[in-house]
Amino acid sequence: MEEPVSYHDRYFTTSSCSGRIILFDGACDCQVQKRNCSWLFVTHQKCQSEDVFCVFLKQLTSLEKSVGDATLKFEPFVLHVQCKKLEDAQLLHTVAVNSGFRNSGITVGKKGKIIIAVRSTHCLEVPVSHRGTVLITDQYLDFLVGVSNQKMEENHKRIERFYECLKTALQPQEQNCILKEAADKKPIYRRRRRRTQDDSVTDCCQSVNDHNENSEEETVCDLLFL
Amino acid sequence: MEEPVSYHDRYFTTSSCSGRIILFDGACDCQVQKRNCSWLFVTHQKCQSEDVFCVFLKQLTSLEKSVGDATLKFEPFVLHVQCKKLEDAQLLHTVAVNSGFRNSGITVGKKGKIIIAVRSTHCLEVPVSHRGTVLITDQYLDFLVGVSNQKMEENHKRIERFYECLKTALQPQEQNCILKEAADKKPIYRRRRRRTQDDSVTDCCQSVNDHNENSEEETVCDLLFL
Repeated sequence: MEEPVSYHDRYFTTSSCSGRIILFDGACDCQVQKRNCSWLFVTHQKCQSEDVFCVFLKQLTSLEKSVGDATLKFEPFVLHVQCKKLEDAQLLHTVAVNSGFRNSGITVGKKGKIIIAVRSTHCLEVPVSHRGTVLITDQYLDFLVGVSNQKMEENHKRIERFYECLKTALQPQEQNCILKEAADKKPIYRRRRRRTQDDSVTDCCQSVNDHNENSEEETVCDLLFL
Repeated sequence: MEEPVSYHDRYFTTSSCSGRIILFDGACDCQVQKRNCSWLFVTHQKCQSEDVFCVFLKQLTSLEKSVGDATLKFEPFVLHVQCKKLEDAQLLHTVAVNSGFRNSGITVGKKGKIIIAVRSTHCLEVPVSHRGTVLITDQYLDFLVGVSNQKMEENHKRIERFYECLKTALQPQEQNCILKEAADKKPIYRRRRRRTQDDSVTDCCQSVNDHNENSEEETVCDLLFL
């Protein structure tokens, strides 16, 4: 992603990943945290089922190399940006959250180094083999690749939305006022309606507001917020 | 979780969830974001496969109520705490990250309201039916419940670790110095070794350091950090 012109006055990108679909192999029956895992397949674009099938079959026939616990995972866009001031981090955080990256957060180091991490709640993690035994059908793997591709597409949309919001937010103050005025008259983006939820299953969590994508309201890029 | 004694001088818990295993039903073929989904099953403890089976079967036989796109998901501990000062948020953030909650982050509102969100990278999200058709076998659902339970167990360990670290961090300064001295002599917790990774599959991400649990070093509660 090419940064907006005035970006470098206030920000410095320290790391980024546009999002990826990965198939990895690692033990998961002794500890949930996966150690010494090996990556079998990785792509930052949509992929074909055949590509994943091919690698998956190869893994199953070379068990001496792997432990046979493969997992298919979609990981969304992640970005770390060092900020000049706390206000700069606040601005980027607002842009990120309003663009759909609701797990974003600021870190302030001991020596005052300010980092904003842009993170999404997007997730897919499916175990596909265990101790060398395939757990799923070919059709299901095909379906999973389709879901991963959908998530990748949505991920790219969010990145674009984030980039557009960032450009607007980094425009000189006067231009932003004109935009705000226009937005006040006819909002371009609106808050989405609160989702309905089945009352038959209740949850005892205390007003959690960033747990997942299913139980909460989500705001889209709202220019009035900037 | 009962807060340590000196907690209330600096912090105010605004929301929390100890972690949960959920089975929900919602359309996912038109948009990745799930709207109007209904929760079929939720537990904050380990669960039995039979409990999930039972609900799953019920869902499949009452399609008029659901759209038949069920997903099994494990969601880890999440906590939101309002902090008096930015330093208080920094302290809680360090404790959270060192206890394994690496997606934690601070939010600073327009009016200066400081919130720290304690979040984990822990994830499991598996589609189990699509348009009323079951995608997986009973054995696989049984396996998934086992994995969810393992994640729940690890989640509870992290919560305990977080609580212990928080208690230590909130002790009066003098006591902390004594502890630090003792830790300097004989560290209780050490950084884990960097994981080895298969070189055959490379990734073009730019030094991302919080993407997932598989590709990066993780620090456990390290008293020297506090």
